[in-house]
This record gives sequence, C-alpha cells and structure tokens, in this order.
Amino acid sequence: MSAARDKLAAERISVIGLGLIGGSIVRGLRAAGYTGPIQAGVADAAEAKRAVELGLVDRAETDTAKAVAGATLVVVAVPIGAMGAVFAELAGAIAPGAVVTDTGSTKLSVIENARAGMGPGIGHYVPGHPIAGTERSGLDAGFAQLFDGRRVILTPTPETDADALSRVEALWSVLGARVSEMDAAHHDEVLAATSHLPHVLAFTLVDTLARMAERTEIFEYAAGGFTDFTRIASSNPELWSDIVTANHDAILPVLERYIGDLEAVRTAIASGERATLAATFGRAKDARDGLAAERG
Amino acid sequence: MSAARDKLAAERISVIGLGLIGGSIVRGLRAAGYTGPIQAGVADAAEAKRAVELGLVDRAETDTAKAVAGATLVVVAVPIGAMGAVFAELAGAIAPGAVVTDTGSTKLSVIENARAGMGPGIGHYVPGHPIAGTERSGLDAGFAQLFDGRRVILTPTPETDADALSRVEALWSVLGARVSEMDAAHHDEVLAATSHLPHVLAFTLVDTLARMAERTEIFEYAAGGFTDFTRIASSNPELWSDIVTANHDAILPVLERYIGDLEAVRTAIASGERATLAATFGRAKDARDGLAAERG
Ligand SMILES: NC(=O)c1ccc[n+]([C@@H]2O[C@H](COP(=O)([O-])OP(=O)(O)OC[C@H]3O[C@@H](n4cnc5c(N)ncnc54)[C@H](OP(=O)(O)O)[C@@H]3O)[C@@H](O)[C@H]2O)c1
Ligand SMILES: NC(=O)c1ccc[n+]([C@@H]2O[C@H](COP(=O)([O-])OP(=O)(O)OC[C@H]3O[C@@H](n4cnc5c(N)ncnc54)[C@H](OP(=O)(O)O)[C@@H]3O)[C@@H](O)[C@H]2O)c1
Repeated sequence: MSAARDKLAAERISVIGLGLIGGSIVRGLRAAGYTGPIQAGVADAAEAKRAVELGLVDRAETDTAKAVAGATLVVVAVPIGAMGAVFAELAGAIAPGAVVTDTGSTKLSVIENARAGMGPGIGHYVPGHPIAGTERSGLDAGFAQLFDGRRVILTPTPETDADALSRVEALWSVLGARVSEMDAAHHDEVLAATSHLPHVLAFTLVDTLARMAERTEIFEYAAGGFTDFTRIASSNPELWSDIVTANHDAILPVLERYIGDLEAVRTAIASGERATLAATFGRAKDARDGLAAERG
Repeated sequence: MSAARDKLAAERISVIGLGLIGGSIVRGLRAAGYTGPIQAGVADAAEAKRAVELGLVDRAETDTAKAVAGATLVVVAVPIGAMGAVFAELAGAIAPGAVVTDTGSTKLSVIENARAGMGPGIGHYVPGHPIAGTERSGLDAGFAQLFDGRRVILTPTPETDADALSRVEALWSVLGARVSEMDAAHHDEVLAATSHLPHVLAFTLVDTLARMAERTEIFEYAAGGFTDFTRIASSNPELWSDIVTANHDAILPVLERYIGDLEAVRTAIASGERATLAATFGRAKDARDGLAAERG
C-alpha cells in the first residue's frame, strides 16, 4: 500500500466525468492522503464551478483537452455512451506517455472506443471496471469509501504496457480496492450475468407492475423484500440503456437462458409440480447462502 | 393503542408455529407489555422445551389440541402447506367463542383450510397477513420489532364476526402494526405481484446462474446490487413452494405478463433499440423512485 501510495504521489491526475464513480474517486484520493493536483473534465460549466467550490478538485474544465493538459494519469468515468466521444477528444490532447484508464461497466465496447481514439497510443490505455456502485448518479452521489474493500477488474489488451498497468493498479489500491485481471470478453460475460441481467430484470418488473391497473395498491403494499429486490431499478436509465446496448452480445444468451428457465418454472406452477419448485428454490437458496457466507 | 392494549389484556393467547413470524409475535407481545399467559404449539419436543427455557412462552406443546386448551385468541403461524392439518386439529379443541386468526402469505387457500376445519365456527376466524418478514426462518429468526410500523392486511369473510375482527385488530395494533382490510381474492392478486412473483424471479435467477459453468466466478464478482436483488432467494424453499402452489391462480397471469414484457425487452436488446430500453428503464425508475419517496 505504501509503495502504491509513493507511486501515485508522482502522478498528476485528471478525472473525466465527476458522477457517482468519478466523484467517489476524487473524494477517495483526498481521503487517502493524495496531495497532488487533481483536475477534472465535466459536462457543464456550473458543475465545473461547483466541483472546485466543494474542494473536490483543483481545476475543472468543460473542454476535455484542457481537462487533461499536463496530466500523467487520466481516468475516464463517463457513461458508456459518451466513451467514444471522450476518447476521440483525448487523442491529440494527452501528454506523451500519459496513462489512460476508464471505469466503464462494459469492457469490449470501451476498448473499441479507446482503439479508435488513441490509435498507436493504445499501449498506454488500461481498461478497468470497479465492481462497486449504488443506484444513485451525479456529483453528490459520490463518497470516499465507495471502493474500500471492493474489487476492481482490469482487462489489459495485448498491447497494454506493464508500467501503465502497474500505475493504474496503484491508483485503485490507494483507494482501498482489490485489483484483479481478466480477459475483456470474459469480463463482459461475467458482468452480463451478475449485474447487467439483474438490472434488466428489475427495470422490467417495476415497469410491468407500474403499467398494471392495481399500480397504486401494488406499490402501497410492497414490503422490504420488494424494496431490496427493486432497488437497482432506481439506477440511471440512460446509463443502463447504454450498458445494455453496448454489451448485448453477452447479455442476450444469459437473458435467453433465464427466460427458458422461467418458462419451466411457469409450467411447474401451472401444473402444480410443487416438488420441482421446491428443488429449484432449494438450489437457489444453497447458492445464495454460500454467497452470503463467503462475504462473512 | 391503550384501548387495544386493554382489549388484548383480557385474552389468553396461543400461537401455533414459533418460526420467524410466530416467534416475533410472542417476543413483540412481551416487549409491548402484554403480561397474560402465552402458550404455543410447535412441531417438535426439543423446540417446545427451548421456547419455554428462552422465556418466550409460558407453555409449549407439540399437540395442537393441548396448545390451544383454554386460549381465547389463537394465532396460526405455520407454513401454508401445514395450515390444512392445523385447522383440522383445531376443530374440536378450541374453547367455544375463541377467536382464531392466521398469518399466512396467501389468503384464499387458508380460508378454504379454515372452512374445512372450523365448519360452523368459521365466523370466529379472521384471515390475516402481516406484510413484514425477512429471508430467515425459525425460532431464532424472530424479533420483537418485526411488525413495528408495518402493514397487516385482514381479509374478513362474509361470516366473520365483528367482535372477532376487532380483537384481532387489537393484537396487531399492540404489536405496532397498521391494520387494513381487503377482499381475500384481491389480497392474493396484489401479493402475487409484489411478493410472490419477485420471489419466483429471484429464486429462478440464482438457480440459472448457479447452473452455469462460470458459477464460481459469477458469484465471486457479484456486488452490492446483486446481493440486494437476490436476498429473497435465501428464503425458505419449502415455505415458498407452498405459497406459490397455493396462489398459482393469481401468480400465473402476472408471471405471464412479465415474461411477455421480458421478451419485448429481449427483442429491443437484440435489435439495438436503445430508445425502447431507455423508455422502459425510465418508467421503472420513476415508479421505483416514487415508492422510495412515499416511504420517506
Ligand atoms: N453506477 C455504477 O454503479 C457504476 C459502477 C461501476 C462502473 N460504472 C461506470 O462508471 C462510469 C460512470 O458512471 P457513474 O455511475 O459515475 O455515472 P454518473 O453518476 O451519471 O456520472 C457520469 C458523469 O459523466 C459526466 N459526463 C457525461 N459526458 C461527459 C463528457 N463528455 N465529459 C465530461 N463529463 C461527462 C456526466 O455529466 P452530466 O450528468 O452533466 O451529463 C456525469 O457527471 C460509467 O461508464 C459506468 O458504466 C458505474
Ligand atoms: N417469512 C415471511 O417473510 C412471512 C411474512 C408474512 C407471513 N408469513 C407467513 O407466516 C407463516 C409462518 O412463516 P414463517 O416465516 O414464520 O415460517 P418459519 O420460520 O418456517 O416458521 C414456521 C414454524 O411453524 C412450525 N410448524 C410447522 N408445522 C407445524 C405444526 N403442525 N404445528 C406447529 N408448528 C408447526 C415450524 O416448525 P418446524 O420448522 O420444526 O417444522 C416452524 O417453526 C407462513 O404461513 C408464512 O406464509 C411469512
């Protein structure tokens, strides 16, 4: 941790996108004792002013080129749908040798955006994804401890430079995260199952119920189980339609498998096969209890 | 509340089934200052001994007839699948005029069990359902505050006696719950949507993922959103296969509607209709945010 801290102390950091993730990164850096300059790229001028006034960053710019000027480590934390534009703007603007990483929830699509934007500089790009978040969005949603004890997956490309990789690892380890590496395609499959599919299911369920005649009563009698189950349906719909669109290749097979399994459960319910239901529910409880036990 | 407390003080209470719900009722009664006798019916002798040793009840019996002897208010809190047997045992055993209520998650099926068991005494039966619970089961899962500020739905039958109804209302209001009334069939429809369907979806999802080759990795990289989303999949599989089997008439239409909506979302993902996804997710977020706001 101390080696990581020393390594990070040498960087001049720029964060593009100060929402839940970017806002948590800058808060976390200060909380971890990083005293170097933090500059940021934001979408609008009022937000730029506010971020500086709140003391979250030293400088905030609405122009990406200005936001990264002089930076040695650039973290791109904008919605998946904005990655292409940001990487294009980075192209001529970053200092030679500067390392670029991102926090996007999908990896193949952002790697494609980075290749298009960075061209021969792609070796200095390290694709990343913190497995941490909440259903909230925007500058005020961020908090310094978001990444504490959480996992960050880095998905280096064949070109990724070893020094760039270790500098990005240092960033996350200073923020308290546990870093691991994975193939980008495999990341997208795993996350399709554990994160993207659950979001699709929760959004769809709440919408199904909201369009029913008994809508008001349904929500009035919803209790704790429903509240937890549907929390992720409060997530940013624009961000999530980007994610689902970008990762459709990995989401579709697991969604189709799920629909097939749900059809089988429907059939079991319709034909009163209580034993089939008990077996399915029992396997699920065992797996879910195992997950809880692992977390301690 | 004080009137309810006075009314309840006159009762001699028997709780059949000391699991999460029954165990919370007896703890809640003591916490609320009810000092009258509490007797209980439990499934096995060791549990009977333990419940008395823990000071939760004054007397516990494995024989339902003995458990209700002398009681003026009987609360049946056994799994849906055990309701029929318990109501049959109650028949000749309860004192004349004793009021019987239940806590079952489905109402039409339990009313049928009660009619079969209680025959002409059905006017003294008040169907009930506390909209409160957790994913845990058994005697140790219960806690005194479970019903505090939560809703309880009573679904009186045409025969339900007004005095019986007000005595059951008194029980729940002493436990801190807000009581409302609803038609039993309507209760089963509303709960199918807000509780039974979410449980089916969560159990099925965890089982789908648990049967995938990447199972270990999937659960390893599951984060907070997934943990909340699947918490209800840790619920008791036997209890829930009973509930789903008993309420299949109300669950099937809303499950089918959901599968249809999910198919539409699948099509939108497959054909890259980002705007359709954003609209669906956006409606869901609005509805879900409204729910959170209402809860304060
Ligand atoms: N939310 C999660 O749980 C989570 C978890 C892990 C990873 N991620 C990933 O992290 C990234 C950020 O997500 P988030 O949750 O932080 O979203 P967020 O709270 O909506 O923040 C995104 C921020 O980026 C800004 N932005 C958009 N376009 C920009 C541009 N061209 N230049 C500069 N700023 C721009 C937005 O500003 P405006 O609002 O003014 O447009 C907003 O402040 C996404 O790629 C997401 O997939 C999210
Ligand atoms: N869980 C929830 O969130 C929730 C919420 C609202 C309503 N409910 C309803 O409340 C009822 C109880 O649920 P719960 O969550 O409390 O379940 P639970 O924790 O599994 O408790 C049920 C208890 O009933 C006992 N039992 C079974 N058959 C019995 C019999 N013939 N005589 C006496 N005791 C018997 C069980 O003993 P053994 O374990 O030894 O068999 C167990 O202690 C169910 O009808 C359920 O639908 C549940």
